[in-house]
Amino acid sequence: MSQEILIGKLAVLLATLDDKEVLHFQSQLKDVEFCTGKVGAMNMEKVIAAVETAAKRENIIAEHLYRENHALYHTILEALEGITRGQFAIGDMKRTVGLRFAIIKGKPYTNKNEGEWIAVAFYGTIGAPVKGLEHEVVGLGINHV
Amino acid sequence: MSQEILIGKLAVLLATLDDKEVLHFQSQLKDVEFCTGKVGAMNMEKVIAAVETAAKRENIIAEHLYRENHALYHTILEALEGITRGQFAIGDMKRTVGLRFAIIKGKPYTNKNEGEWIAVAFYGTIGAPVKGLEHEVVGLGINHV
Amino acid sequence: MSQEILIGKLAVLLATLDDKEVLHFQSQLKDVEFCTGKVGAMNMEKVIAAVETAAKRENIIAEHLYRENHALYHTILEALEGITRGQFAIGDMKRTVGLRFAIIKGKPYTNKNEGEWIAVAFYGTIGAPVKGLEHEVVGLGINHV
Amino acid sequence: MSQEILIGKLAVLLATLDDKEVLHFQSQLKDVEFCTGKVGAMNMEKVIAAVETAAKRENIIAEHLYRENHALYHTILEALEGITRGQFAIGDMKRTVGLRFAIIKGKPYTNKNEGEWIAVAFYGTIGAPVKGLEHEVVGLGINHV
Amino acid sequence: MSQEILIGKLAVLLATLDDKEVLHFQSQLKDVEFCTGKVGAMNMEKVIAAVETAAKRENIIAEHLYRENHALYHTILEALEGITRGQFAIGDMKRTVGLRFAIIKGKPYTNKNEGEWIAVAFYGTIGAPVKGLEHEVVGLGINHV
Amino acid sequence: MSQEILIGKLAVLLATLDDKEVLHFQSQLKDVEFCTGKVGAMNMEKVIAAVETAAKRENIIAEHLYRENHALYHTILEALEGITRGQFAIGDMKRTVGLRFAIIKGKPYTNKNEGEWIAVAFYGTIGAPVKGLEHEVVGLGINHV
Repeated sequence: MSQEILIGKLAVLLATLDDKEVLHFQSQLKDVEFCTGKVGAMNMEKVIAAVETAAKRENIIAEHLYRENHALYHTILEALEGITRGQFAIGDMKRTVGLRFAIIKGKPYTNKNEGEWIAVAFYGTIGAPVKGLEHEVVGLGINHV
Repeated sequence: MSQEILIGKLAVLLATLDDKEVLHFQSQLKDVEFCTGKVGAMNMEKVIAAVETAAKRENIIAEHLYRENHALYHTILEALEGITRGQFAIGDMKRTVGLRFAIIKGKPYTNKNEGEWIAVAFYGTIGAPVKGLEHEVVGLGINHV
Repeated sequence: MSQEILIGKLAVLLATLDDKEVLHFQSQLKDVEFCTGKVGAMNMEKVIAAVETAAKRENIIAEHLYRENHALYHTILEALEGITRGQFAIGDMKRTVGLRFAIIKGKPYTNKNEGEWIAVAFYGTIGAPVKGLEHEVVGLGINHV
Repeated sequence: MSQEILIGKLAVLLATLDDKEVLHFQSQLKDVEFCTGKVGAMNMEKVIAAVETAAKRENIIAEHLYRENHALYHTILEALEGITRGQFAIGDMKRTVGLRFAIIKGKPYTNKNEGEWIAVAFYGTIGAPVKGLEHEVVGLGINHV
Repeated sequence: MSQEILIGKLAVLLATLDDKEVLHFQSQLKDVEFCTGKVGAMNMEKVIAAVETAAKRENIIAEHLYRENHALYHTILEALEGITRGQFAIGDMKRTVGLRFAIIKGKPYTNKNEGEWIAVAFYGTIGAPVKGLEHEVVGLGINHV
Repeated sequence: MSQEILIGKLAVLLATLDDKEVLHFQSQLKDVEFCTGKVGAMNMEKVIAAVETAAKRENIIAEHLYRENHALYHTILEALEGITRGQFAIGDMKRTVGLRFAIIKGKPYTNKNEGEWIAVAFYGTIGAPVKGLEHEVVGLGINHV
């Protein structure tokens, strides 16, 4: 593979693993910028906002530059496709999600002209708004910044 | 969480991690049935067939029982949504995928009446049919068997 | 066909026919559990809730078992695809639906190991929220329980 | 309802019922033009062609008038949404369909200025290309001609 | 081409060009009925309503005739696909649109039996609800009336 | 608007207008790179390939840089959504397209830190593979490069 840093894999591990498990992969994180967060919601708007807010607060994207906002936004949408799996909007369907997310920015390709790329991963549960009536979901989006 | 085995997380780890990394999670795999495989393809039909063949060969689903085939099929489709991310069929779009997949069957819920569930995860790359012009993708589907 | 009970056809007939017309098919209903209901709505959430409530009240699915809730939920979503026909959420589009629905649970296959399956059918009208500006719609979903 | 002829219901019944059952509804068919047919296929193209050919052969639409072809084509696509239920193209997914279809043209509305409308209904099975590994599906599309 | 009036092209030009630029195309508009308007919104419902209201006010469609409402509604939905580009509902995703629209009705085909057709075009911006964080979008729908 | 060059509008005009009409807009094209082309096809693969080939041949994107290929590819897909309008793949549905396309690269925003963006527009006809049974379609995609 022409990638020397697997930002997609790392984003999924950061979203999926607990604090102790993630220690096994710490050395792979030294060359990327990243942050993680949590969001529980019954609509996609709140999920999107949580990721955008975290990315700006941690300076992973520049708040006032549209090209970085545009890149992040489409990355989030691609990751959400894995969560909704081709179906309709979350809130329209009596579903609720509880998600952990990770955002990674780095230069994954051996060829440094490929520049910076961003990965957004989600891991958590989706289900009826009743505890226990839910199963796991994972989503990953990747885009050039 | 009312799940005592996270079959979705385990399937994603099996598809994503290399042989050495996965050793950290070996103990969590003792109570589930699973298998893994690889597939490279320019159409979804070949990806679906590879997973179905592996699941039957490893006796994760019964070959001649439609309800198990039906459960697996919809699980694969849900996982593929994370790979295609709301877009069209792979082969129609000049894209090629190289994927590792994992299939897990187990009883994830504390309440044993919840019975068996199946998880299918994909990890790999999607891109132009030219080496290097590709990025990572992840997909996960879960269904009751 | 390897099905001896056509639960899909029966669900569609129960949703579509009036009380008198349905009498012609009464004998085919003796080996299945079923219930019917009505719902008028401008959003999918209300339609989904109406079917779920009826299915639980009539004991077609067990209220606290996630696998049965999961099976019913995906069956409803599949049936709704016939109603929305690939378009967006109902309420987002100034459309209103008036639907009759039927839920059937039974063992449709000759091979009894195939176990129980569920069918959900809708029949009614979709249109502008103005009387008469509407046409008929039908949807059917089927899943293993 | 402002419809005096339920062309959607009639199309679904024509596609779903066997020759003997349909006799109960014969009187409702006297004011519409209709035809029925069968098609088995692993791709949508063949299904679409079968319906178009039948409609032209039976003079339900005028072969060389684009507006009638356009109306029929979109009606078929809407009906197919109920068959594919939001998923990908049939042949891309190792699925095969065996369908009976009905096409009805008539003046369903009380207000005769509403003119002619067309309904296309499908009923049959979808599944793996292995006998028995399949379940029922229904689809209905309606359009002004 | 068998069209002598390109209603799709004209609708796109009316929506896209400013008052001065559109003068170059004035002569092509003499044989069609048309109107234009503007709408800013965070949900599709408001966009659909703005177009429907304009079409009725300018007598491009008859308010109480369902077949004309049905034709316009599906034309608007097709045009909105170009705006949302396969993604979810506008308001669900923290997006806002500012659109100019044009509606054209005419007899575009050389063969006059093809009758009247309608075109709806949108041009404007979509983006975050923050000035400047947005890019252009275009959509066109066409249908027989 | 914070855009001083409307690359979306210009791309649509380049794809839509004939050689004489486009002269009115020549002055707006002096600060962007662009090329145009034509493609007739019964599948999306051929349409995508035609645009990619033109963009590389005219040096609008660098052939061996994945980030530019990735940006162009997603721009093409977004533009194709306007052509297919939420429906299935072209070739699966007995449809054929005849399209003119335009690709524009430029720095549209007043804030020069926003850098380069790309727009792809299509204009032409879609229909049955029979001359005359077709109507116009337009699509536009925009992405940061």
